[in-house]
Amino acid sequence: MDYVIKNGTICLEGEHFRGDVTIRSGRIWALGEAIHTGSEEVIDASGCYVCPGGIDPHTHMDLKQSPKYRACDDFYSGGLAAACGGTTTIIDHMAFGPDGCSLSYPFEIYRKLAADCPVDYSFHGVFQHVDEAVLNDLGRLIDDGFPSFKAYTTYGYPIGTKEMMAILPVIKAHKGLLTVHAEDDGITNALRQTLSERGPIGQALTRPNEAEAAAVAAVLAAARACGDAPVYIVHTSAHESLAVIGQARAEGQKNIYTETCPQYLVLTEDKFRDGGPEEGIKYMMAPPLRKREDNEALWQGLQDGSVQTVATDHCPFTEAEKEENVSDFRTCPGGVSGVEERLPLLFYQGVVKGRLSLERFVQVTSSNAAKIFGLWPRKGSILPGFDADIAVIDGEKTRTIDKTSLHTRCGYSPYEGMSAAAVPLVMLRGEIIARNGQFCGRRSYGKLVKRWRL
Amino acid sequence: MDYVIKNGTICLEGEHFRGDVTIRSGRIWALGEAIHTGSEEVIDASGCYVCPGGIDPHTHMDLKQSPKYRACDDFYSGGLAAACGGTTTIIDHMAFGPDGCSLSYPFEIYRKLAADCPVDYSFHGVFQHVDEAVLNDLGRLIDDGFPSFKAYTTYGYPIGTKEMMAILPVIKAHKGLLTVHAEDDGITNALRQTLSERGPIGQALTRPNEAEAAAVAAVLAAARACGDAPVYIVHTSAHESLAVIGQARAEGQKNIYTETCPQYLVLTEDKFRDGGPEEGIKYMMAPPLRKREDNEALWQGLQDGSVQTVATDHCPFTEAEKEENVSDFRTCPGGVSGVEERLPLLFYQGVVKGRLSLERFVQVTSSNAAKIFGLWPRKGSILPGFDADIAVIDGEKTRTIDKTSLHTRCGYSPYEGMSAAAVPLVMLRGEIIARNGQFCGRRSYGKLVKRWRL
Amino acid sequence: MDYVIKNGTICLEGEHFRGDVTIRSGRIWALGEAIHTGSEEVIDASGCYVCPGGIDPHTHMDLKQSPKYRACDDFYSGGLAAACGGTTTIIDHMAFGPDGCSLSYPFEIYRKLAADCPVDYSFHGVFQHVDEAVLNDLGRLIDDGFPSFKAYTTYGYPIGTKEMMAILPVIKAHKGLLTVHAEDDGITNALRQTLSERGPIGQALTRPNEAEAAAVAAVLAAARACGDAPVYIVHTSAHESLAVIGQARAEGQKNIYTETCPQYLVLTEDKFRDGGPEEGIKYMMAPPLRKREDNEALWQGLQDGSVQTVATDHCPFTEAEKEENVSDFRTCPGGVSGVEERLPLLFYQGVVKGRLSLERFVQVTSSNAAKIFGLWPRKGSILPGFDADIAVIDGEKTRTIDKTSLHTRCGYSPYEGMSAAAVPLVMLRGEIIARNGQFCGRRSYGKLVKRWRL
Amino acid sequence: MDYVIKNGTICLEGEHFRGDVTIRSGRIWALGEAIHTGSEEVIDASGCYVCPGGIDPHTHMDLKQSPKYRACDDFYSGGLAAACGGTTTIIDHMAFGPDGCSLSYPFEIYRKLAADCPVDYSFHGVFQHVDEAVLNDLGRLIDDGFPSFKAYTTYGYPIGTKEMMAILPVIKAHKGLLTVHAEDDGITNALRQTLSERGPIGQALTRPNEAEAAAVAAVLAAARACGDAPVYIVHTSAHESLAVIGQARAEGQKNIYTETCPQYLVLTEDKFRDGGPEEGIKYMMAPPLRKREDNEALWQGLQDGSVQTVATDHCPFTEAEKEENVSDFRTCPGGVSGVEERLPLLFYQGVVKGRLSLERFVQVTSSNAAKIFGLWPRKGSILPGFDADIAVIDGEKTRTIDKTSLHTRCGYSPYEGMSAAAVPLVMLRGEIIARNGQFCGRRSYGKLVKRWRL
Repeated sequence: MDYVIKNGTICLEGEHFRGDVTIRSGRIWALGEAIHTGSEEVIDASGCYVCPGGIDPHTHMDLKQSPKYRACDDFYSGGLAAACGGTTTIIDHMAFGPDGCSLSYPFEIYRKLAADCPVDYSFHGVFQHVDEAVLNDLGRLIDDGFPSFKAYTTYGYPIGTKEMMAILPVIKAHKGLLTVHAEDDGITNALRQTLSERGPIGQALTRPNEAEAAAVAAVLAAARACGDAPVYIVHTSAHESLAVIGQARAEGQKNIYTETCPQYLVLTEDKFRDGGPEEGIKYMMAPPLRKREDNEALWQGLQDGSVQTVATDHCPFTEAEKEENVSDFRTCPGGVSGVEERLPLLFYQGVVKGRLSLERFVQVTSSNAAKIFGLWPRKGSILPGFDADIAVIDGEKTRTIDKTSLHTRCGYSPYEGMSAAAVPLVMLRGEIIARNGQFCGRRSYGKLVKRWRL
Repeated sequence: MDYVIKNGTICLEGEHFRGDVTIRSGRIWALGEAIHTGSEEVIDASGCYVCPGGIDPHTHMDLKQSPKYRACDDFYSGGLAAACGGTTTIIDHMAFGPDGCSLSYPFEIYRKLAADCPVDYSFHGVFQHVDEAVLNDLGRLIDDGFPSFKAYTTYGYPIGTKEMMAILPVIKAHKGLLTVHAEDDGITNALRQTLSERGPIGQALTRPNEAEAAAVAAVLAAARACGDAPVYIVHTSAHESLAVIGQARAEGQKNIYTETCPQYLVLTEDKFRDGGPEEGIKYMMAPPLRKREDNEALWQGLQDGSVQTVATDHCPFTEAEKEENVSDFRTCPGGVSGVEERLPLLFYQGVVKGRLSLERFVQVTSSNAAKIFGLWPRKGSILPGFDADIAVIDGEKTRTIDKTSLHTRCGYSPYEGMSAAAVPLVMLRGEIIARNGQFCGRRSYGKLVKRWRL
Repeated sequence: MDYVIKNGTICLEGEHFRGDVTIRSGRIWALGEAIHTGSEEVIDASGCYVCPGGIDPHTHMDLKQSPKYRACDDFYSGGLAAACGGTTTIIDHMAFGPDGCSLSYPFEIYRKLAADCPVDYSFHGVFQHVDEAVLNDLGRLIDDGFPSFKAYTTYGYPIGTKEMMAILPVIKAHKGLLTVHAEDDGITNALRQTLSERGPIGQALTRPNEAEAAAVAAVLAAARACGDAPVYIVHTSAHESLAVIGQARAEGQKNIYTETCPQYLVLTEDKFRDGGPEEGIKYMMAPPLRKREDNEALWQGLQDGSVQTVATDHCPFTEAEKEENVSDFRTCPGGVSGVEERLPLLFYQGVVKGRLSLERFVQVTSSNAAKIFGLWPRKGSILPGFDADIAVIDGEKTRTIDKTSLHTRCGYSPYEGMSAAAVPLVMLRGEIIARNGQFCGRRSYGKLVKRWRL
Repeated sequence: MDYVIKNGTICLEGEHFRGDVTIRSGRIWALGEAIHTGSEEVIDASGCYVCPGGIDPHTHMDLKQSPKYRACDDFYSGGLAAACGGTTTIIDHMAFGPDGCSLSYPFEIYRKLAADCPVDYSFHGVFQHVDEAVLNDLGRLIDDGFPSFKAYTTYGYPIGTKEMMAILPVIKAHKGLLTVHAEDDGITNALRQTLSERGPIGQALTRPNEAEAAAVAAVLAAARACGDAPVYIVHTSAHESLAVIGQARAEGQKNIYTETCPQYLVLTEDKFRDGGPEEGIKYMMAPPLRKREDNEALWQGLQDGSVQTVATDHCPFTEAEKEENVSDFRTCPGGVSGVEERLPLLFYQGVVKGRLSLERFVQVTSSNAAKIFGLWPRKGSILPGFDADIAVIDGEKTRTIDKTSLHTRCGYSPYEGMSAAAVPLVMLRGEIIARNGQFCGRRSYGKLVKRWRL
């Protein structure tokens, strides 16, 4: 069916204007004034913002985090939650495979896991070890439409500058991108072993800002040494990391991208303490929540363009799972929900509160991710020829985030009680998949999107 | 007649895409893919960039600069030159009237002077003295569609912080804008009196960077003291001025706008010396040409958004007029041409050379000026509902700037011999007014555009 | 009489050490360990800091501020207060003379006024108008031992960049120094005329930070245009001014000096409000008290060396004189005491509280002023051959500032109730002039010190 | 014998003045004017600068760098060279011992190696592995007078943040100091393996600036995570490292110290290329020579105090040893001479050329090292009670550095042909050990100096 979305404020990356959008065969056909020809179904968007469907480049659906814990949203429930929150494409960071597995291995697993996803999706590869086979696979996978891969500088398979120096030349040659979870392994592990505090705040005390910033510095140095190979820092949370990135850019280093997440913009480490350990443990995540000054630096980064994307690191666990670890933060599964809250929350906290222009909102929730991860020029903007992936946002109707109206299976939201915008309608490739926060799409409607080399 | 411009790269403020633009009744009707309905005349823009028509917010057509000298382009020849270079709207800085004249007086003169202008136009008011009558007129003129006014901190009617403190509250209350020619009067006059050097380089030596930066600092302080009243620094040329502006913004001061001109981006004070005095005197202008580091800082400012507009300060005099003052730079009429060169030159020196993105080019040549000066949302973008003011630019066909192909009456170009882009087609309100640098519009087609309050 | 001061911590500009100082014929003879020869009188300084006598380069003794008001300390009472607080040399900023008076005129008046001063002294000249006679006098006065002069950018005889451009080349040629009271005249006067608030806080509202910073920018620009002619900004109070100065230095501008005063380090504009108008009016001064962030920036400047001196602007009026203007801050005489509090207060608030090293304390209270104003190498350090001007400070015995123990005639202290260090002994040219805050010197012992060219 | 050094310019950390120094029983007794009592031998220092004897906190005398190569200066020849160049104390970075050796082991070896040293000396410990025994030894050695230890982030025993997190708390608790050779191991090794270039410039290409800066960032982060544990970066060479350090300090991190060496101030990587491989290989060292902008940043750091010391990393090898590796920079022994050139070269290149004040010269060649490494208040200044360690420098008699007049056994100087100051006299603990660059001291006169905890 063709549609015309009428009288909304159409939000592009550099401007917004009152007008109509016509959609034919699942794609944007035209933007204009009164361009309705009569054959389309009319959607009235008066008073609303017509934005590109959200792209969340950092989810962990169905993640097996440890032998004991698996993220409670799979691609169906997580994708459904995404849809209800205005996000039409996710790029999932896959779990590690068995020791020594090939770089391709998790892709096979995840193609199956994601088969019933109701929104479009792709995967980032993940490094566990580096050898010639891995590097060969790397080039081929990039060429095959998976241009982005992840390295963790800590956890079970820490990737250091030694390994990056092998990975990055291949990434660069094939026009891929290395995304990095950056926390210094030596510092965090030492602190985890010596700190006697076992309550939730221990997470913040053992993963200090400087551990993140030092790891970022190492990544950027390796990239620099490889001729400005492209790197993308995921879930940046510390203001010191932004300073490191800013300094590198001031030195002329190119191809550095920075992601943050809503939790690092609107929550602080006070959450670990306030309300007692049972409440605090629900916010367990890595990097941990930071301080107000970090929030502010990240908002500033979104405003001035030095932070390019707001992803979620969506990786929820149930309250029960969290709370059974209340006596030791170190055994608690890490991660929170966010894929449904992201757009409504950021629209309210950013655009409505005057901290983000509409244009920046579009960029950081959709367009930039599309460009950085090879979805452009198919997704990420409301321009003729693009997929008709659209989130209609109502900035005047605000609602309070309430766990009972969310679709994650974890049973709570870290943003409970905060104000957010309403999302009256969500469209993916020309089909309406959600209305007013209720899913009306289809299981398995999502497609694995082949991505361009960068 | 209606048109469809097909297969060009349509350049918006935040993105560009391959597509078509349809034009109905002089306005943009739709952007899309293959949206040609058959009734429109087709313009093929394959390989070209479809940009919003240029807005030059700083010209001096027909300017009576002194009893002896009058700028050699009037609104007809200057507007025609603008059209041939892709500029479809000018906002002219009017000349002073007689001592003690009312603020309205020059508007009456200029309405007549501009009557045969072939492109759209408006005027900035100008302050000569400040009293209650002037302040009353100021509010009324803003409300009537002339929201911007100019103060010169030097020359015949220097406006200092004392006067600005009277002007700015009215400007702010009526949502107008104060534009300022900022050079410290005390410093420049003292140097002019004491310097023995009378060759063209004297202009640079007597109007040093610090004289500009100090005047900018004074303007910003007055604006700050009036609650961040809006100010716009014209023809910013010194890197120190950008530092002053950057510092004020870092302090949280809002409503500061910065303009530069092509001459301060691509020429240096070497022009005053190279080729001898007869050649050097042709570059006489104020502020003077600066150094390479100033060029670089201004390019950087355009890139990072801290400089918002590239205007021209178009104010040409003939070679003969310039050269009769070769023995004393102080008597030489000041100003050069540029209204025709601006878009082609900046496209080549900026976009083609990789120093400006297409998006920034659109912003600094058109969109930003439209927003800052109250022409938005009528002019400044290729969006549905806007005036169909369009410059089609060919980035691959470069040409060399050659005075014989330009339309100014001054007989030379400060950019002679530099590379520039071609402008195959220019449209104003849906009518084609130039093709391949040749005028095909009409005398008096231009309209006085009433501008919004800001 | 010769002395040996034993076992103190001798404080130099770059180090401090435990040892002895011997004094012969009014000068420092040797520093060493156990260098007592038996013929000297022994002063035990165990547990104390042996510092160079304070130099206060900004006092206004006996200042006729207006027809109605004259500062209540003359050179006798003010000099006596200085002595009791450890300051052994003052450089006084003289009052204006009659309209049109010569540059030399006030020097004649002040030689008489200062005749009974008990501490050493000199004068800064002051500009009222600028003509050839003034400029001739200027060179001669510098050569005669008065190398520093003051320009006010506001008040009765505002000196702008025009006048500075005449003054500064002479200053530079004769190796003098221009000191400047920097507040933008246009901004402050406009605000004074339009503000309806008449309580003490009006002083802060009408003399905003930006007015100071803009005037500083103008001064620095004029100095730059004169080949980095030397300028000294008196009583710097706004953090924005420091930013302007820092920026100029970063551009390579040399010969810029910065002074602040205790009031701008330890008091805030809250003093204007707290305690009601009668209390607030006692703090009337220009520039006004600022905010906490300004205090902090100034402390930072002292720490990093970007602020060179702490002077006082000592210019007290009685409580009665202040309070009779409680209904209109604009008629209130401006200025407070400080010459006696400066060293004890700064030692406690700076050194004891850990915000200043001993070395910086010595620099900002004595050595730097000696070097900047031409008293070096006679005064400003405890080095062999220097005048034996010494303040022995006891950092452990703290006292509370109490108006009843001070020697100013104004009857109150802006620092009442704050903690300060004790000053057990003060010596000027080898004679003890104060012990434990009690004067034991002599009227007229002070000498007019001829200063070197710079 | 007692001495009086008369009429020199005595150079302290914060001032310099013309006067006399008397020396009794090997210590400074007094500073003053005409304090000669008749019993001392008079040394005339007219026209000369009387500076504290140099302290070189980074030498590698007798270093066994590899099975094949041992530094050609032992403690006798190296100490003698130091003496001739005005350096009276060295702190040597010891070689690694056998795998698994205790932290104390090298101290025993080096006490013997250094027994015939003609200047005073101490040693920095060195980490090879970290376990409980090492950490126990660490505390004891600090308490015993060896407060400083070294970690290499690369080479045979790389110490990463993991190990530092164990070391630093002990260092901090015992008031010691960790010195670090900071180059990222992963980056440099990867580049060494992949670079095909084998000429001397390969050293610069495989040890890029960013590898140093990243390692510095890691060290500072570990120190920060240990509560600002004290760290000292040896031979800082890259401007990016200074930016990292500056950023950390701006974040409030304390206890960071920075060293550079003459080679990084006055030589550039052009030395690797100019003159061909045989010449270039003589400059083989790590970190490698850098670029002009790095030189400039380091000079700037010395000027503004952000770089505290200039050491040498003296570790010479003969020309023959260097040249036998001309075909592969990777096998070449690393290091050059400098212990004799340091003071004369820095005085000329710094003080005489106007890039360092006398005060900074004293600080960076002596006083700062004394304070940082626990020699203060015994060494590092010409103050009463200090060891009479003195270098008399003649700033007017310049000489050209000439290998034939130097005392290193390596046979060449990296500074050959550069201008340097003369050193007429050198005194250690009151005995003259060199005159006019000729040794007149005694083998084994040097003492092992027990150092204070910090």
